[in-house]
Amino acid sequence: MGRVGRRVAAAAFCIWDAFVIEGRAVNPNAAKSVPLSNDHLLAQLHWRYATKKFDAQKKIPAATWRTLEEALVLSPSSFGLQPWKFFVVENADFRKQLQAASWGQTQIVDASHLVVFAVKQDLGASDVDRLFDAMVKQRGADRAQLEGYRQMMLGFVANVPFGITTQEWSARQVYIAMGQFLASAAMLGVDTCPIEGLDPAAYDRILSLPQKGYRTLCASAAGYRASDDRHANLAKVRYSHGEIIEHI
Amino acid sequence: MGRVGRRVAAAAFCIWDAFVIEGRAVNPNAAKSVPLSNDHLLAQLHWRYATKKFDAQKKIPAATWRTLEEALVLSPSSFGLQPWKFFVVENADFRKQLQAASWGQTQIVDASHLVVFAVKQDLGASDVDRLFDAMVKQRGADRAQLEGYRQMMLGFVANVPFGITTQEWSARQVYIAMGQFLASAAMLGVDTCPIEGLDPAAYDRILSLPQKGYRTLCASAAGYRASDDRHANLAKVRYSHGEIIEHI
Repeated sequence: MGRVGRRVAAAAFCIWDAFVIEGRAVNPNAAKSVPLSNDHLLAQLHWRYATKKFDAQKKIPAATWRTLEEALVLSPSSFGLQPWKFFVVENADFRKQLQAASWGQTQIVDASHLVVFAVKQDLGASDVDRLFDAMVKQRGADRAQLEGYRQMMLGFVANVPFGITTQEWSARQVYIAMGQFLASAAMLGVDTCPIEGLDPAAYDRILSLPQKGYRTLCASAAGYRASDDRHANLAKVRYSHGEIIEHI
Repeated sequence: MGRVGRRVAAAAFCIWDAFVIEGRAVNPNAAKSVPLSNDHLLAQLHWRYATKKFDAQKKIPAATWRTLEEALVLSPSSFGLQPWKFFVVENADFRKQLQAASWGQTQIVDASHLVVFAVKQDLGASDVDRLFDAMVKQRGADRAQLEGYRQMMLGFVANVPFGITTQEWSARQVYIAMGQFLASAAMLGVDTCPIEGLDPAAYDRILSLPQKGYRTLCASAAGYRASDDRHANLAKVRYSHGEIIEHI
């Protein structure tokens, strides 16, 4: 990180929209929390596993899938920049081609749904302005009041700190969405198989993503486990609580 | 990605433990799914926001926090490699020092809990062996049967494809855990503030993470929103469904 980067960082780092941003529009859901029990949350997370064999006959109901798409839309991102797009591949011929670009994994064609997690290419000033347009429109925010925040974000995307490129910073955000998607599907009793085992360049080519301004990072199949998927019954392998969590 | 990398990729990319791995130990939770309703999931995800002001008096009950730690332990990762550790900072003096390294954000000291998301440094052969030891122990898997899978993973971590370093690949996985954590907390009615707005090097120094083999990526405060956090009532700013989701 150069000198400019450090200055930007110093100014920018109350991120994930930590600035006090005024707006007239309110979130109608702010007070509506009906928490799950601890046991219920853990039961769903234990139930989840990377499904290797889907029941090709069993489709996710339209309302359930729409809910998972909404969970994607609601994914958190740093600054709220949402440097992503999610491509739901319905075309059977595309699915076949993608399977060939995924080492033949049957989940690609057998699962009810397949969603490709794509990162925005060349995140820059126009993306910052796009976000501010949305803030003004959706929050009823005052554009002039946001100018300082906007300048800070312009500096940030032009010079991302952490020793990584803007592209890689954007990619990290997409993985937050993957985490939210997998957890959300587990809550709804929908099986998933997150897939990094694919050729991103081939996916890009098959789906014409670069022409749309995006690049493939990973994907997830979603649907329902086949009754004979032996992976469903294998014990989950996780390091022990004490190895993963440290209190200091 | 060099020629070796491409060969490894071709062999390795049925990942997220897509190989059929035998084991005698079973997952006792495999059949226990009690799905939430679509509306309930969305209500919790809408309720979530990046909390800017926490109620410093309100603590997360021990059983609830333990559940969120379990959600972290259960986070999915590619290959199941879990290239992470989560540091729960309880020491008040550390919290003060971390606040200074986070542009003074009050969430760092006011929130009930603070967890630092750290990535394993220098992920390599010993980490692969650590995972295989866990597979043998927790799944009752046969070590000899796993040898081909082990060799493939050794090749993968030595030569990660996607044009990124092993370190960055590991970092992406940590962001999946962030996504699962934020969604899980929302399910339990626990407020969070994900924080990239921090100086990772200062965090590392304050918490002595490199000596433990880890590096700070980001953090999350967790607790309960203050009644006067004006951000709680602001409309969530998200691009429209049609801008974020494309069916092809």
